[in-house]
Amino acid sequence: MNETHLRKLLSSLQDGTVELEQVLNQLQRLPIEAVNRHQLDHHRSLRTGIPEVIFGQNKSSQQLVEIIKRMLEQPTVVLATRVSAEKAAQVRQHCPQLRYHPEAGMLTANDRHIPGDQGRGTVVITTAGSSDLPVAEEARLTLHYLGHQVACIHDAGVAGIHRILSRVNTLQEATVVIVIAGMEGALPSVVAGITAAPVIGVPTSVGYGTGAGGYSALLGMLNSCSPGLAVVNIDNGFGAACMAAAINRSR
Amino acid sequence: MNETHLRKLLSSLQDGTVELEQVLNQLQRLPIEAVNRHQLDHHRSLRTGIPEVIFGQNKSSQQLVEIIKRMLEQPTVVLATRVSAEKAAQVRQHCPQLRYHPEAGMLTANDRHIPGDQGRGTVVITTAGSSDLPVAEEARLTLHYLGHQVACIHDAGVAGIHRILSRVNTLQEATVVIVIAGMEGALPSVVAGITAAPVIGVPTSVGYGTGAGGYSALLGMLNSCSPGLAVVNIDNGFGAACMAAAINRSR
Amino acid sequence: MNETHLRKLLSSLQDGTVELEQVLNQLQRLPIEAVNRHQLDHHRSLRTGIPEVIFGQNKSSQQLVEIIKRMLEQPTVVLATRVSAEKAAQVRQHCPQLRYHPEAGMLTANDRHIPGDQGRGTVVITTAGSSDLPVAEEARLTLHYLGHQVACIHDAGVAGIHRILSRVNTLQEATVVIVIAGMEGALPSVVAGITAAPVIGVPTSVGYGTGAGGYSALLGMLNSCSPGLAVVNIDNGFGAACMAAAINRSR
Amino acid sequence: MNETHLRKLLSSLQDGTVELEQVLNQLQRLPIEAVNRHQLDHHRSLRTGIPEVIFGQNKSSQQLVEIIKRMLEQPTVVLATRVSAEKAAQVRQHCPQLRYHPEAGMLTANDRHIPGDQGRGTVVITTAGSSDLPVAEEARLTLHYLGHQVACIHDAGVAGIHRILSRVNTLQEATVVIVIAGMEGALPSVVAGITAAPVIGVPTSVGYGTGAGGYSALLGMLNSCSPGLAVVNIDNGFGAACMAAAINRSR
Amino acid sequence: MNETHLRKLLSSLQDGTVELEQVLNQLQRLPIEAVNRHQLDHHRSLRTGIPEVIFGQNKSSQQLVEIIKRMLEQPTVVLATRVSAEKAAQVRQHCPQLRYHPEAGMLTANDRHIPGDQGRGTVVITTAGSSDLPVAEEARLTLHYLGHQVACIHDAGVAGIHRILSRVNTLQEATVVIVIAGMEGALPSVVAGITAAPVIGVPTSVGYGTGAGGYSALLGMLNSCSPGLAVVNIDNGFGAACMAAAINRSR
Amino acid sequence: MNETHLRKLLSSLQDGTVELEQVLNQLQRLPIEAVNRHQLDHHRSLRTGIPEVIFGQNKSSQQLVEIIKRMLEQPTVVLATRVSAEKAAQVRQHCPQLRYHPEAGMLTANDRHIPGDQGRGTVVITTAGSSDLPVAEEARLTLHYLGHQVACIHDAGVAGIHRILSRVNTLQEATVVIVIAGMEGALPSVVAGITAAPVIGVPTSVGYGTGAGGYSALLGMLNSCSPGLAVVNIDNGFGAACMAAAINRSR
Amino acid sequence: MNETHLRKLLSSLQDGTVELEQVLNQLQRLPIEAVNRHQLDHHRSLRTGIPEVIFGQNKSSQQLVEIIKRMLEQPTVVLATRVSAEKAAQVRQHCPQLRYHPEAGMLTANDRHIPGDQGRGTVVITTAGSSDLPVAEEARLTLHYLGHQVACIHDAGVAGIHRILSRVNTLQEATVVIVIAGMEGALPSVVAGITAAPVIGVPTSVGYGTGAGGYSALLGMLNSCSPGLAVVNIDNGFGAACMAAAINRSR
Amino acid sequence: MNETHLRKLLSSLQDGTVELEQVLNQLQRLPIEAVNRHQLDHHRSLRTGIPEVIFGQNKSSQQLVEIIKRMLEQPTVVLATRVSAEKAAQVRQHCPQLRYHPEAGMLTANDRHIPGDQGRGTVVITTAGSSDLPVAEEARLTLHYLGHQVACIHDAGVAGIHRILSRVNTLQEATVVIVIAGMEGALPSVVAGITAAPVIGVPTSVGYGTGAGGYSALLGMLNSCSPGLAVVNIDNGFGAACMAAAINRSR
Repeated sequence: MNETHLRKLLSSLQDGTVELEQVLNQLQRLPIEAVNRHQLDHHRSLRTGIPEVIFGQNKSSQQLVEIIKRMLEQPTVVLATRVSAEKAAQVRQHCPQLRYHPEAGMLTANDRHIPGDQGRGTVVITTAGSSDLPVAEEARLTLHYLGHQVACIHDAGVAGIHRILSRVNTLQEATVVIVIAGMEGALPSVVAGITAAPVIGVPTSVGYGTGAGGYSALLGMLNSCSPGLAVVNIDNGFGAACMAAAINRSR
Repeated sequence: MNETHLRKLLSSLQDGTVELEQVLNQLQRLPIEAVNRHQLDHHRSLRTGIPEVIFGQNKSSQQLVEIIKRMLEQPTVVLATRVSAEKAAQVRQHCPQLRYHPEAGMLTANDRHIPGDQGRGTVVITTAGSSDLPVAEEARLTLHYLGHQVACIHDAGVAGIHRILSRVNTLQEATVVIVIAGMEGALPSVVAGITAAPVIGVPTSVGYGTGAGGYSALLGMLNSCSPGLAVVNIDNGFGAACMAAAINRSR
Repeated sequence: MNETHLRKLLSSLQDGTVELEQVLNQLQRLPIEAVNRHQLDHHRSLRTGIPEVIFGQNKSSQQLVEIIKRMLEQPTVVLATRVSAEKAAQVRQHCPQLRYHPEAGMLTANDRHIPGDQGRGTVVITTAGSSDLPVAEEARLTLHYLGHQVACIHDAGVAGIHRILSRVNTLQEATVVIVIAGMEGALPSVVAGITAAPVIGVPTSVGYGTGAGGYSALLGMLNSCSPGLAVVNIDNGFGAACMAAAINRSR
Repeated sequence: MNETHLRKLLSSLQDGTVELEQVLNQLQRLPIEAVNRHQLDHHRSLRTGIPEVIFGQNKSSQQLVEIIKRMLEQPTVVLATRVSAEKAAQVRQHCPQLRYHPEAGMLTANDRHIPGDQGRGTVVITTAGSSDLPVAEEARLTLHYLGHQVACIHDAGVAGIHRILSRVNTLQEATVVIVIAGMEGALPSVVAGITAAPVIGVPTSVGYGTGAGGYSALLGMLNSCSPGLAVVNIDNGFGAACMAAAINRSR
Repeated sequence: MNETHLRKLLSSLQDGTVELEQVLNQLQRLPIEAVNRHQLDHHRSLRTGIPEVIFGQNKSSQQLVEIIKRMLEQPTVVLATRVSAEKAAQVRQHCPQLRYHPEAGMLTANDRHIPGDQGRGTVVITTAGSSDLPVAEEARLTLHYLGHQVACIHDAGVAGIHRILSRVNTLQEATVVIVIAGMEGALPSVVAGITAAPVIGVPTSVGYGTGAGGYSALLGMLNSCSPGLAVVNIDNGFGAACMAAAINRSR
Repeated sequence: MNETHLRKLLSSLQDGTVELEQVLNQLQRLPIEAVNRHQLDHHRSLRTGIPEVIFGQNKSSQQLVEIIKRMLEQPTVVLATRVSAEKAAQVRQHCPQLRYHPEAGMLTANDRHIPGDQGRGTVVITTAGSSDLPVAEEARLTLHYLGHQVACIHDAGVAGIHRILSRVNTLQEATVVIVIAGMEGALPSVVAGITAAPVIGVPTSVGYGTGAGGYSALLGMLNSCSPGLAVVNIDNGFGAACMAAAINRSR
Repeated sequence: MNETHLRKLLSSLQDGTVELEQVLNQLQRLPIEAVNRHQLDHHRSLRTGIPEVIFGQNKSSQQLVEIIKRMLEQPTVVLATRVSAEKAAQVRQHCPQLRYHPEAGMLTANDRHIPGDQGRGTVVITTAGSSDLPVAEEARLTLHYLGHQVACIHDAGVAGIHRILSRVNTLQEATVVIVIAGMEGALPSVVAGITAAPVIGVPTSVGYGTGAGGYSALLGMLNSCSPGLAVVNIDNGFGAACMAAAINRSR
Repeated sequence: MNETHLRKLLSSLQDGTVELEQVLNQLQRLPIEAVNRHQLDHHRSLRTGIPEVIFGQNKSSQQLVEIIKRMLEQPTVVLATRVSAEKAAQVRQHCPQLRYHPEAGMLTANDRHIPGDQGRGTVVITTAGSSDLPVAEEARLTLHYLGHQVACIHDAGVAGIHRILSRVNTLQEATVVIVIAGMEGALPSVVAGITAAPVIGVPTSVGYGTGAGGYSALLGMLNSCSPGLAVVNIDNGFGAACMAAAINRSR
């Protein structure tokens, strides 16, 4: 409901081509569809550039089936994150057209609605260690379904600093770089020091002792001495992908 | 020292136009200048797009004078952040060409080296309350000195939700939005839900009790239910500006 | 044992119609019934308006059976919270008149003792996301058994701010509003900014990374910039319902 | 801008008695007045029952003077919280009609606009120790300026349990009870166990060692075994008063 | 090896009745017996009044069997704490003379070596709720095996303050009182305010949300406004019993 | 008001020697004297064995003068803890009979009311380092004014383990040992391992980095591997002394 | 690629014996081998003295098989840490030459490549309790495979201080001492006070209540009053062994 | 009191050249000298290789004077750490032979007792930023006074990774490297990845927001992905120097 639309609606009221009650109704109605106790927000994509994506973690398989069935009928990709293998199997019994990505923990469908290239360039995803791969996969798949080009550099943590230095060119050519790291979370600082692209840090919960849960990596990234770096929640590959898409989006 | 330069250097060695020791020396020398125990990194701007900026918080006024004097001679803007009024007065006795911005706590000089418009569009800075203004000023000034266009929306916190909703157009036209908020830090979630631009959240230490120090605002932003949002450290207006500049930079 | 009762008892002693030992006994006896090592407090309802409710989390099914059997004989509703499905099944083998509510995790009985309408108006329960429903159900059922009218608004989080704004009328007509939210916990701030009713915030443990456990939502609500809001413990739907009942109670 | 107003406005447009641009303007204009970079929200009282109150903690005396001068012209009481004695003296040089309350740290004016009795009954404020008095005074003054009746019980902590038990009648007759306590914060649990009125707990930062900052008292109140209790931020006497006013308000 | 023993040993050396090497050996040998990689400390009882008690939590059933078999041969009671039902069953296959106490999670044997009454009076154990019973049982059994008289008051939390007030006499006659409470942990403050006996507070991990883990109860007890109270670790019924035994011990 | 007194009072009512209103009055009146907003609890000593002691930290010098003047008239020692040198000087201008102990931060008076020896033996106070002396002095003075014998062992931390081992005899002869330590707080574990007396650990806020505030020492003492040890709040020398007095008290 | 190698390479270019592209290639190539998404760093041993060791915790058994197969072909020992018994069994089905050490949770192979004695002396490993043995075993095995001599002192915690004091000679003769302790973590302080060897503290997660997770032990070690002590992460026996090897290594 | 000494003493007793009481006395006396309430440990150097060093933070200038005067008479260097400029001036009025080092915050004297070179090689001290210099100076001076050779690399943080890479040779030739860093504390990980020397990480409290206090840097170092690294407390330059000395010490 932008200004143009509003101006047109009011003109129609002035002209007598619509009724007052219709205008009143329009002004109060919003494109939300209720599925039992869920409110689906089909216009989110127009508003924010990111379609409604289902956060699967705290939903039962029954709740997921209800929501996904309704979304499958819409002209949009279907993405559900943080779905365990067990829950995915239950959901797919009712929605066999879904594909499950075990490493990323995602369910996807409606691939024909993946938009054409939406980006100004390539998003580079970097991981510090092979334990960070599940988070990287969540980010990569999300970007793919949002219509962005992705390149990956894996297992390039700072304990062997030459591994990331050998990929400086790739990093400098990126439109945006996602750096995923657990433990001390130092890799984003190094990357932000050698590229002009904006860097999104994703701390992961990989670690033990004081590193368990990912707080060590999160603090490391928030306190980086390298400017040009911002951070998302621990293990939030999806959020990093959405931020990267917002940055990379051509207007 | 990019590949082109390296290739040329090695050709010269092959040609005999330079000596082996010179090449060896070049390969080991980096454009760093030592000022007492500080290493100035004059090539940082080429590498990351952000010039060397002085973090004033833990430096004595004597240390600041030494570093700033050397930077004033370089063809670059001079920026020092987190400088108290008292320390600024001491520094300006030795470097009278510096200008002090008390709300932002910054010292600046060499305005003639502010680059021309570096951005693809406008960076919008939004604050939740008037107590967040110092952080906003640090961000605004930094963006100005890096050559970016800025617009501001102030005092638009969620307790009166109409204040931010009335500015939807400005938010939707931005290339990137910086949202600065203390207390519960909820404003970035609302903004990220109504614009397609990438949003950078800056938690501030405004608050008391459990809000003291800004952790409440930080957690609020990290756990936002709105995708398209990333976060910098508490009170880090400078870091938000650098991230915004990296995003807004035209290539 | 109020002043009237005491005055009457002492008069009887004066009159010689009761013995000194009886008075002494009355002054020391309190209406508490011991069930093994539990002390049931049947007068709690008279004292605080809220009957004895069983907190099931750390009790064995055997302990629950003992206590519930004794309560079933009293002229009061029977409510047990935080009972897992497995434990509920074991208890119901001994007390088949109990009904189990799986989403709320509650056991109930003695519905004939639900009091008539106790309230001055309607309690509105609002959730930010569908993952908050179990907590909402615990609150809704508790209010129902305490004799209060309830209305619900679900899945109205701030990422799509229009969802809650479209329900302003319902919120403004409530006597009290319970707002249940996880992640950044921002919804109570928005609600408290658009209604004059007192708002009770319930943070939920829905989230991951820094949001795990519900501390992020709790801090968000404690530090709200909107006055007219108070908070209960994480996931404490029962406590929110009791506070709402105390507020809504007609005198 | 309620529905009645909107319906009337649209009718006028239909009637031709107003211009389209005027309607458009009205729909976008909100009763917010800008004072430099502050947005005063004069309609807040209509919307939430609580007038705009100035949070003085992070504002300079100059900022306070600007805002207060504008508010003094409005038909409303003027309240500023968390104003130090020093800052208050500076502000009163420009606004001599202000009165300073040193124990509460508040500035007030426009007493002629204190509304008549707004409440259904009396708000009782209880403190555990005499160190909690500043927070109690902030709550008491706020309630007074919002038009509510207040009674106080001081220095009644649980170390001498008879002190609070001797005041049971006062507690049971209250419409709402505010209980203010530092250290272990146990008093609200005891009070909520002996009254049917809703209880608002206010933890205070009184204490040392593990009690410093008020977290011990906050946790004690959030985890109370007594239902009918909700909590506000540490030292937040103002917030407790607003919640109490919302509960006590007659409709 | 006390002074008397040492003086005698040295005299013997002087007398020539023992060899120098023997003395040297005695001075270096200590009454510790090695069981594989465990060092049993059989003289601990003489030194501290508390015999060697086995902490079962991190030991395998095989480790437990090894240690217990050796202890069964000593003239002392055998106590093992924090033994799960499953592990207990495995151990009892090899040591059938052990008795398992499921609520306390303890294995005991050698009851004939329980010492006669060691105390100056009675230790009173008080719990706030029935969920605290396992910790109370660990304390009660430990005191029993150390030779102390115990009395119990159960389910007497502050939400119904009359429950503990009705037992003032018992509390005032105790030599020492152990108060066990989860959630807000307020009961020890009330008890310490009505008895002259030393009070040992034991926080329990009973609770959820911010109360999970027992930190809320621990902080409540450490910050008690009642003097005459000290605290042991969360759920540490054994430690409370040892402290109570040390206090109650007659000399 | 014990049972004997109550029985006598009721007999008098039966006999007609007192009026009903007098009895009613007695049953409701408690020996509390109000000083402005403070409730002095003169019977506390009878109830708990510890007289009313003034916690000076959050009280103004004016508040202290009011309370102390009233207490000076009572037949009891006067003790005020946590009084700064500056505040003490102000108070002593109005109450010159007070004595100030700068290391302990205490004001004392009415020494003629120090009770005769109240203890079964000697309380030993041990410190790990000389920085712990202020806390030790608070404990020592409190015990002295409560009528207990004290002996001290200073600067005996575990970095030179022979320092405490050389004092084993003193530790073994004590009725109770207070061990005061900052940093890692290991000394109480060692002491509890070599004496049968109950040990009270007092963590101090001596330290820096992760040791600042005393949490490291507190955790060390709560998790001691030595039984027979309980803990009070950080820097709480007064609380340790009260616990020691309760233990040492002869009955 | 050290200076000698570089000088030689450049000479060859000068001489014309190698091509420019070959030099360019050499300067950019590093001895890293890619196994799917893992980068094996075979030169790490030359660079840091510690070979590539596999951190098994977050890797699937399939990932482990891939990496280990490639490493088995190299002339180096194979070490994988933090491998559960279940995962180990799966891996050994594909790599039967591996040996599993259940207490340490390690897989090892290629014992013929264990280097000859690399150390200047003996590394002593000390544990406070038998629950710390798994961490000690991880350290002991790692040191063995790195070619160092190890001696062990077990179950020597501070509750029986004579147990460690009787081993002073062994501690004083060590080149480096690793001290492993949970709970209050006091043993490293005592050890560092009686030996001149550098001490590495390893906190373990053995404990419960406030000791759960090992933070209490970690803080105890970081705040030790004994100099000559440094700390590694909780339960990090591997890290302690690597630090000890670096210290003990002869040059 | 080593074995040789003991054997000799006992022989003398056997020979009758010393009395039994003398031996008894020797066995109980330890070389500790009492200065008021301080126990000076003059034999510490023999036992641990590190002389008694005065921790000045919590000591008054009067306490410092007492202790230092006694130490000046001993044949050892005098070192006092964490002495503020103000306190140093007061102390030097009584002990003018002391020298004050303002950046390190240390007082030193008795330079003639600095031992000759005690080390196997050179200790390298590295800082990430110029704000870390005070901690580096504390470490450098301590090592100097303990008789070790030191080299320094300053301002070499990971934001400009070439700064540390250009010093690889120095790092590889060190016997031990101390790496001092605040903010994200990433530099030790990089250094430990490029040298075989043991690395001691020192987190500093340089930073703000989530970095304030140094916890971010501490966690970064504890969770380093590079083996061969151990950590000391935040800002503990003295502790790092003592650990480095213990490692570097030749035997």
